[in-house]
Amino acid sequence: MYEGVVQDLIDELGRLPGIGPKSAQRIAFHLLAADSTDVRRLAAVLVEVKDKVRFCRTCGNVAEGEQCRICSDTRRDLSKICVVEEPKDVVAIEKTREFRGRYHVLGGAISPIEGIGPDDLRVRELMTRLADGEVTELILATDPNLEGEATATYLARLVKPMGLRVTRLASGLPVGGDLEYADEVTLGRAFEGRRLLDV
Amino acid sequence: MYEGVVQDLIDELGRLPGIGPKSAQRIAFHLLAADSTDVRRLAAVLVEVKDKVRFCRTCGNVAEGEQCRICSDTRRDLSKICVVEEPKDVVAIEKTREFRGRYHVLGGAISPIEGIGPDDLRVRELMTRLADGEVTELILATDPNLEGEATATYLARLVKPMGLRVTRLASGLPVGGDLEYADEVTLGRAFEGRRLLDV
Repeated sequence: MYEGVVQDLIDELGRLPGIGPKSAQRIAFHLLAADSTDVRRLAAVLVEVKDKVRFCRTCGNVAEGEQCRICSDTRRDLSKICVVEEPKDVVAIEKTREFRGRYHVLGGAISPIEGIGPDDLRVRELMTRLADGEVTELILATDPNLEGEATATYLARLVKPMGLRVTRLASGLPVGGDLEYADEVTLGRAFEGRRLLDV
Repeated sequence: MYEGVVQDLIDELGRLPGIGPKSAQRIAFHLLAADSTDVRRLAAVLVEVKDKVRFCRTCGNVAEGEQCRICSDTRRDLSKICVVEEPKDVVAIEKTREFRGRYHVLGGAISPIEGIGPDDLRVRELMTRLADGEVTELILATDPNLEGEATATYLARLVKPMGLRVTRLASGLPVGGDLEYADEVTLGRAFEGRRLLDV
């Protein structure tokens, strides 16, 4: 509907995840009216990201060199690996400051519906990392949904012969939430995982 | 939270309208995993758009040259101008194939709250276009909201001395909609604007 390059821009923006045709149009017109230097900066950072950003050879997290910041940090606890689905999960856990070990980013979760099996994830790389026996605890922090649970169960069974301590993040009520608004599965899990109060 | 350029990309994406921090992160990781040629194509079209796209000297619509496709089309009816707020409104009206005249894009609507007055819109340019007397009908197609109505009223008063036929798009029930779901203002307008059925 638009003239040449404007329509090209709307089409390209519409390919991004979560951007429908209306949003793509709105963003395109915002960019048309925006300062040229701002738009060029966005274009430049897009190119730079593809030039510079690699995935860490060790854990699969995003990295600007061969290894990510966490894997190349010698102060991290080498005895613990926390397995997550995506690089953004690493950031979420880092924000808690609860974990000082290293990560392993699978690049997704097992999903038969989407045709994603263990071979499509960085499972082999994980097994290689566990082979030298330095790691003693594997924390399975895949998402608390169907695919994440299936992936955690699969990995737990796979590493069982290695005799590691394998843990899973607790499910339960979100802190600061309202009990009455929790869904029944979450509430059920909160009951199941109830802890003894030591007062 | 992310390493250098990844965070830069998230920040840049987060500046786009309707893209919150979570969406910016999701899009950034999509781009990280995407094919390099696709991302470079997006970057290239961003630069191209800023290089090529101008606003039509006559009507203010987007254009790749001095004039937009519509203003340079000699088959259009020169006696009618349809006033809209944004270039996307031109596209919406063109899709209806109801209008064969030309447009005038104001670049927004009068909004005292946002500090937008007539001088911030392309009102002076509209008056210049009307000066030669070729135009006989001015269709005010600003949005049917507070700002759009105020803008239409302002323009109608402004051009009154010129003796033009000044019209406003009909308000009423959306076609294919359900009467019971219409808000009361729309339903009120539909009553107000009821037409005699000629059967």
